[in-house]
Amino acid sequence: MSNTEMKLVVVGAGGRMGQTLIRIIRETDGAVLHAAIERPGSPFIGRDAGELAGLGPIGVEITDDPLAAFLHAEGVIDFTAPAASVNFAGLAAQARIVHVVGTTGCSTADEEKLEAAARHARIVKSGNMSLGVNLLGVLVEQAARALDPSDWDIEVLEMHHKHKVDAPSGTALLLGEAAARGRGIDLATHSVRVRDGHTGPREAGSIGFATLRGGSVVGEHTVILAGEGELVTLSHSAGDRSIFARGAVKAALWARDKKPGFYSMLDVLGLNSN
Amino acid sequence: MSNTEMKLVVVGAGGRMGQTLIRIIRETDGAVLHAAIERPGSPFIGRDAGELAGLGPIGVEITDDPLAAFLHAEGVIDFTAPAASVNFAGLAAQARIVHVVGTTGCSTADEEKLEAAARHARIVKSGNMSLGVNLLGVLVEQAARALDPSDWDIEVLEMHHKHKVDAPSGTALLLGEAAARGRGIDLATHSVRVRDGHTGPREAGSIGFATLRGGSVVGEHTVILAGEGELVTLSHSAGDRSIFARGAVKAALWARDKKPGFYSMLDVLGLNSN
Amino acid sequence: MSNTEMKLVVVGAGGRMGQTLIRIIRETDGAVLHAAIERPGSPFIGRDAGELAGLGPIGVEITDDPLAAFLHAEGVIDFTAPAASVNFAGLAAQARIVHVVGTTGCSTADEEKLEAAARHARIVKSGNMSLGVNLLGVLVEQAARALDPSDWDIEVLEMHHKHKVDAPSGTALLLGEAAARGRGIDLATHSVRVRDGHTGPREAGSIGFATLRGGSVVGEHTVILAGEGELVTLSHSAGDRSIFARGAVKAALWARDKKPGFYSMLDVLGLNSN
Amino acid sequence: MSNTEMKLVVVGAGGRMGQTLIRIIRETDGAVLHAAIERPGSPFIGRDAGELAGLGPIGVEITDDPLAAFLHAEGVIDFTAPAASVNFAGLAAQARIVHVVGTTGCSTADEEKLEAAARHARIVKSGNMSLGVNLLGVLVEQAARALDPSDWDIEVLEMHHKHKVDAPSGTALLLGEAAARGRGIDLATHSVRVRDGHTGPREAGSIGFATLRGGSVVGEHTVILAGEGELVTLSHSAGDRSIFARGAVKAALWARDKKPGFYSMLDVLGLNSN
Repeated sequence: MSNTEMKLVVVGAGGRMGQTLIRIIRETDGAVLHAAIERPGSPFIGRDAGELAGLGPIGVEITDDPLAAFLHAEGVIDFTAPAASVNFAGLAAQARIVHVVGTTGCSTADEEKLEAAARHARIVKSGNMSLGVNLLGVLVEQAARALDPSDWDIEVLEMHHKHKVDAPSGTALLLGEAAARGRGIDLATHSVRVRDGHTGPREAGSIGFATLRGGSVVGEHTVILAGEGELVTLSHSAGDRSIFARGAVKAALWARDKKPGFYSMLDVLGLNSN
Repeated sequence: MSNTEMKLVVVGAGGRMGQTLIRIIRETDGAVLHAAIERPGSPFIGRDAGELAGLGPIGVEITDDPLAAFLHAEGVIDFTAPAASVNFAGLAAQARIVHVVGTTGCSTADEEKLEAAARHARIVKSGNMSLGVNLLGVLVEQAARALDPSDWDIEVLEMHHKHKVDAPSGTALLLGEAAARGRGIDLATHSVRVRDGHTGPREAGSIGFATLRGGSVVGEHTVILAGEGELVTLSHSAGDRSIFARGAVKAALWARDKKPGFYSMLDVLGLNSN
Repeated sequence: MSNTEMKLVVVGAGGRMGQTLIRIIRETDGAVLHAAIERPGSPFIGRDAGELAGLGPIGVEITDDPLAAFLHAEGVIDFTAPAASVNFAGLAAQARIVHVVGTTGCSTADEEKLEAAARHARIVKSGNMSLGVNLLGVLVEQAARALDPSDWDIEVLEMHHKHKVDAPSGTALLLGEAAARGRGIDLATHSVRVRDGHTGPREAGSIGFATLRGGSVVGEHTVILAGEGELVTLSHSAGDRSIFARGAVKAALWARDKKPGFYSMLDVLGLNSN
Repeated sequence: MSNTEMKLVVVGAGGRMGQTLIRIIRETDGAVLHAAIERPGSPFIGRDAGELAGLGPIGVEITDDPLAAFLHAEGVIDFTAPAASVNFAGLAAQARIVHVVGTTGCSTADEEKLEAAARHARIVKSGNMSLGVNLLGVLVEQAARALDPSDWDIEVLEMHHKHKVDAPSGTALLLGEAAARGRGIDLATHSVRVRDGHTGPREAGSIGFATLRGGSVVGEHTVILAGEGELVTLSHSAGDRSIFARGAVKAALWARDKKPGFYSMLDVLGLNSN
C-alpha cells in the first residue's frame, strides 16, 4: 500500500493554512492532494485548489462534501475550528482513515469526542504541529530532569514580531511547562515572569521568562540551563509559518500504516516514552 | 551514612586540576577533603593542600601513600595518567570506595583493568567530566534519531581560544559521533570537515563541521539541526575549566550509595537508557 | 514635491525580484508604482503588474517602452543585467530621475558608463541592497580599526541553505574585506579559509572564515572579534529575500531630493565618511 | 621614551582588582609594575605585591606613600573610591603622569576636581573600562542613528549570574542610552522595561529591555535591531572580570605620549568623534 502516494484531503482549503497545506502536499514525495473541502456556501466552492494556492490549475475542484471526499482518501489534514474538527473526526472514523488535527481551542468535551473517534480513525493531534518545537519540548523536559535545580537555573527567552500582543508566547509557556514537568514542580508557583529594579538574587528552582519583540520575527524560543561555569542552551527558530503544514503532512504519512488510536507529535517523532 | 560529609581523596593534588579539585571540594556541601596525594618524590609532599590551592592552610598535608589515605576515605578523584589510574583503581577496589576517573588516553588494556577493579570499587569514568557536555551528547543523539535525515541537516560548530592547535575539537567530534549514532550511520564516511570554493549543494545525510578560533574562549559547542523553515540548535558553553572538577565531585557524591560497578556520567545524569 | 507619493518604475517587472518590488512599493508609504517594464517580446507585456505580483489588478499594464515610462516618473528600480542597466541609466539621465541599481556583475566599463550617467541622474548602486548588511559592513570596519590586531582575533561565520554551491558566501567575503580595510591589510594574504587536523595555534592578525550549510536558511552572517576575556559579535540575519527590494525602495525615496550623482547604500544610511 | 617599559603604579594594590592589575601588568609587553600602594594602616603594607597577587615574589613591596611612588613613575591605575581618586589625581598632576580612573560613583564635584587635575595630568576615566563594551556603545549609537525608527525596533537583552540583585544591568542601560542618543530621543520616556500578559503590539520607536539571570554568567549584552525581514545583532560577552584591568592598562599605555587632558575609553579606541 505504501508504494503509492498517500491520498490526502485538505479541509478549510480556502484559508491561508489550507492553501499552504495544498502547496506543501504538492512538494512532498509520497503525498498527493485527493480533495479540497470548504464549508457549504464558501465563495471558494468550485474553484481549482491549485490555482487558489498559487500553483496553477491541478484539476482538484474545491467542494463542500467531506464524506464523499474521505471515502476514497487515506487521510485528512485539518486546521479548522473545534466544532468542525469534531465533525470531521466522525467522518474520518467512518472512512477509517488518518485525521491530523492542528485545530486549537478544543474543549474537554471536544477532546473526548476526538478520542472516541480514534477507536476507528488514526488521529494525530498537537497544539503545535512543528516537529522542531515538539522535539525541543522533549529535550527540555529531559535536561530539566537530569540537572539538579540547586545547581542549574532555567530561563526561557522568546522573540516574536512587533505585532504580537501578548507575552510570553504560548510556546514559551509550553517549554516552561516541559521544564517544570522535568523537575516535578508546578510552573505557576515557580515562574518569574518579569525582572525590573531591585529584584534580589535569583531564587533557586525558579523558572525565568524574558520576552523580546521586534520586526517580523516569526518565532524564536530559547531555553537556557545555567550552571556554575557552564551553560546548556536549547533553541528553536521558525523561519516561516509553513512548518506547521509540513509537520502535519509528515504526521499523516507517519500514521498511514498505524493502528487506529489517538497520537501526538511525540509519537511521530518516536519520542513518546509512554 | 549520607548524613555526614563524604570523605574524598584527591590524587595528583599538586597539579592544576588537583588544586582546582581541592577548591571545588571545599565549596561543595556534603564533601570534605580527607587526603591529598602526590607521587613519591614530588616537591609538593609535606605541603598543606589548602595553601597550595590558594585557600590558606586547611590541615591536610600532601602525602605519597594512597593506600593509607583510601582506607578511611569514601572516594578518590583522579585526573592523572593511565598507569597511575589503573593502580589507584586497584587500591580503591581493596578499600571498596568510589573512584572517579577523569584520566584520558587509557588503552583497551587499561580499560579492562579498570572494569575488573569495578567488581569491588564504584568507578565512574568519562572522557569529559562536564555535566553539560555529557547531557548535550545525549540530547543530540536523541534529536538526530527523531528527525528524518532527508529533511534535516546536522552541523557541528565549535569555538576555542587561539592557542588550540587542532580542529575540530575532541568534543565536537564526540557530538558528531552522538549525531551519527542517533542516525545509525558511520561518522567518518558521512562528515564534511571543510568547505571552500565550489562545494556543490549540501549532500543529504552528511554531518558538517566548522571551526572558529580566537581570544581566550574556553569552549563553545553548537549542534544545529536545520530543516525546511526551522532550526533546532543545541549548545554548550564552558566558562572556565573548573566544570570538569565540579562534574567529578558531583559524580563521587552520586556514587556514594551505589553498588560496585562501572558507571559513566550518563548514569550520574540519570540518562543511561541501558 | 515630497508631499506627494514618489512615482516609481520597476524594470524587469515580470521576474521574481520585479514582482517583489511591485509588492513592496504597494506597501510603502510615500511610493507608488507608476509603470512596469519588460523587454520587448516578453510574454508579460500587456498583463496587469499587480495581478502578476499576486496583488490583484492595480491598473498598471506591463509595457516595453522604458523612455515613455521614465519621462513622467521620479525613479526607476532595476535588478536586471549589466547591459540593460547601462541602457536604463542613460534614459534615467535624460529624464533626470533617480536610478536605483541592484544589478550585479557589472564590468569596469559598465561602471564607467553608470558614473557618466550620474552627471544627470541620481544613481544609487550597491552589490547588496539590504540596509542591514551595508550597516554591518561599516560597523565591522570600524571595530576592526579600533581593536588592536595583536590582542583581538577576527572570525567570519556564515550559514546558508543546503542548495548553496559555494563557500564562503559573497557577503562573508565582503565582511572580511571590511575587516581587512579597517586593519589596513590585504584580505587575500591574511585569510584562513579552512581549519582541519593539526592547524597549529592561530596566527595573530589573520581573519578566519567558517561555513555552515543546512535547511532553508536565507542568510546568517556573524563577525566575531575575540579578545582576552571578551568577545564582540556583530551579526546580520536575513529572514526573506524581500529585504533587497525594501532597501532599493528606501534608496529611491532617499535620493528623491538629492543632487545628481553616484551614491551607495552608505549614503542612504548616512554612514559615508567620504 | 616609549622604547622602555612604562612604569606603572597600582593603588588599592591589596584589593581584588589591585591584584588583578598586578597580574595583568606582569603579562603585558611594554608595562612594568613600579610601585604598589595601599592606604596607611592596611595589613598589606610591607608585603611583596607579586606574592600577594599569586605571582611569587617580584621585589615590589606594598607601601602607603603614593607621592614618592608617583614621582618616578609614568602612570597610575586606580580602581579605588571617589575621595581617594580625587586625591590621587592631584598627586598625578604634580608628578605630571598618566592617571587611569576606573573608580565609579564619583559626584559632580569629584568630576570637577578630576577635570581640574587634568590640566597637568593625562587622565583617562570611564564607567566601564572594557574595550569591548565601550566599542559596542559606539556601534549601537551609530546603528540607531542610521536605521529609521519607524522600520527598525531596538531591543536590549542582558544575562548575568544568579547573584545579581538588580535589573537591567548598568551596562544594559548604558547601551540603551547609546541607542536613544543615536535616535535623538530620551531613553526614560521611550523604554519598555517589562512585558507580561496582554501588552498590545509593540510601540514604534520604543526601546525594549529583557533580563536573564542564571549560573555564574559574568556578563552578556546584546542589542538587537529588528527590521522587516532582517535583524542586526550587536553583542558583548565578558568571560572574566580581568577585562577591566586589561582595558585600564591599555589606556595607560595609550596615554603615555598624549598631552595633559581628560580622556575617555573612546579616545583610547580612536572612536571619539568630538
